Amino acid sequence: MTDAAPAPRWRRLDKPLFEKAALIGLGLLGSSVARAIRRSGAAATIVGAEPNDAHRADAEKLGFCDAVVASGAEAVIDADFVCICAPVGAAAAIGAEIGPALAPGAILSDVGSVKGAVIKALAPHVREDICFVPAHPIAGTERSGPDAGFAELFENRWCIITPTEGSPPEAVAKVAALWRAFGSDVDEMTPSHHDRVVAVVSHLPHLIAYTIVGTASDLEEVTQSEVIKFSAAGFRDFTRIAASDPVMWRDIFLTNKEAVLELLGRFTEDLVRLQRAIRWGEGDTLHEHFTHTRAIRRGIIEQGQDTAAPDFGRRASPDPAIKAEPDE
Amino acid sequence: MTDAAPAPRWRRLDKPLFEKAALIGLGLLGSSVARAIRRSGAAATIVGAEPNDAHRADAEKLGFCDAVVASGAEAVIDADFVCICAPVGAAAAIGAEIGPALAPGAILSDVGSVKGAVIKALAPHVREDICFVPAHPIAGTERSGPDAGFAELFENRWCIITPTEGSPPEAVAKVAALWRAFGSDVDEMTPSHHDRVVAVVSHLPHLIAYTIVGTASDLEEVTQSEVIKFSAAGFRDFTRIAASDPVMWRDIFLTNKEAVLELLGRFTEDLVRLQRAIRWGEGDTLHEHFTHTRAIRRGIIEQGQDTAAPDFGRRASPDPAIKAEPDE
Repeated sequence: MTDAAPAPRWRRLDKPLFEKAALIGLGLLGSSVARAIRRSGAAATIVGAEPNDAHRADAEKLGFCDAVVASGAEAVIDADFVCICAPVGAAAAIGAEIGPALAPGAILSDVGSVKGAVIKALAPHVREDICFVPAHPIAGTERSGPDAGFAELFENRWCIITPTEGSPPEAVAKVAALWRAFGSDVDEMTPSHHDRVVAVVSHLPHLIAYTIVGTASDLEEVTQSEVIKFSAAGFRDFTRIAASDPVMWRDIFLTNKEAVLELLGRFTEDLVRLQRAIRWGEGDTLHEHFTHTRAIRRGIIEQGQDTAAPDFGRRASPDPAIKAEPDE
Repeated sequence: MTDAAPAPRWRRLDKPLFEKAALIGLGLLGSSVARAIRRSGAAATIVGAEPNDAHRADAEKLGFCDAVVASGAEAVIDADFVCICAPVGAAAAIGAEIGPALAPGAILSDVGSVKGAVIKALAPHVREDICFVPAHPIAGTERSGPDAGFAELFENRWCIITPTEGSPPEAVAKVAALWRAFGSDVDEMTPSHHDRVVAVVSHLPHLIAYTIVGTASDLEEVTQSEVIKFSAAGFRDFTRIAASDPVMWRDIFLTNKEAVLELLGRFTEDLVRLQRAIRWGEGDTLHEHFTHTRAIRRGIIEQGQDTAAPDFGRRASPDPAIKAEPDE
């Protein structure tokens, strides 16, 4: 494997898709969307709304919007594209604030990690003349705030669009074109199927990671500094996603409750089965399970979602104290 | 962060530490130890024992030993250093085989991931004139077999030496010198403390990863190909360690049973607490827990065990289909 970077897939558009884009929330996601819009030329003007004073000051200083305001209702005036980039728990309040101010015919989208609950929260505030196109870019880092964003965040990532019954096909196509201009792959599915898929590939893994990191930090016999020192033995793989934004994740679990609890029930059953096999020394049960899980990993590598390199794709570090990736 | 590789830490020794090293088992670990011994000049002669015919043929072809034999008892004749590099479940049988053939004064070591059970299994076969120095290099990849090994496997990794009451200090120092010559950092602790530490940093994470990957592969509503397609949303982090060698991990869980079950009890309690908070909509409990776990991640980054780079240290890939690292 070489160190060459992949060819960039984002593109500069010949003419803007939108006259004025309004982004509600300028954290990691909102500030990245602003930067990606500017880089691709997808909107002639970008206005950002950010209620947090410190974040708003940062956003003004960083200059990735043409204007930054405190009020969502003010930002959306005359905007033909509005994207809500806030924790999903804030959707109802934001809908109530911006709903009456939306321009006729505007496309309203979002980047929320849960779709069913967000659509339900926004629905009362979406007038008939608004084109509602919910979306979820599967992208992020464990950092937060306007200075954490970057235009490349969406490059080579999936964006899942989950049209509602009222989403006009032309508006769906425009939102898809926007994300493709950011360098993303676009997929489409129903909101409820989306919520089940992300419960598996994202929400349950995050919940488990948050749990195990908490368990490991509260032991008496093994110190926290030992856990950190030897974390490369497997534990470290869990810590990255357990460092994600607490508010965002609180909201995700509260709003995708049914799918997460259903899946958690299955996970617990499976875990108890392995636990019982360990307690009773049933080596065959363990061996069979551990063989089965290898197949999924092979699929992920074959489809190019990860590399087979023994270092797990980690780049060599100039700091000799940084360990590469072991697994036992 | 640059792409420069760290300065190598392994070193070529002025004179061999041992006249003849015998390695029992030539899989990933054994074949890597052989290569690292040869590169560092730590032994004048290297003999490998491998009972599996296909693996033995591979090892002969690859040439990382001076001689490859089928029998451990034959390999250890006149060896002043013997290292057992086999799954921990095989320790008792290997001890019975090689014990009577060990040369007087030989240093007997191993690379097993569990120390208490291995020491107990080997003890009856370790004569008084043998210097027993158990060790555990925290290094590995998810691949297996003689062709999977490489000398750099131990570079910048920890090797934990767990002396028993009978381990002569000079022999411990010699084993430490060997691992330092491979480029490893060396730490020392009691076997029982070692087993608790690795239960936290390695065994529980692997068990959880094996479980969640199994759960995700057995769903009805979300297909396996969807899980693979969107795995970069968090799930992928778990799949690497769930692809590790099934026999090795079966043995680890069966031999470190007490520490793993004790820890699993705590993990389950913590998970049920979060599950209950989700079910009853207790956002504060979730938020508090998710904030707490960020501190551990910060510690890992500060101590250089991982990087803070948003791409999780992944190197850029020439294949545009390979996604970088998102987290939601």
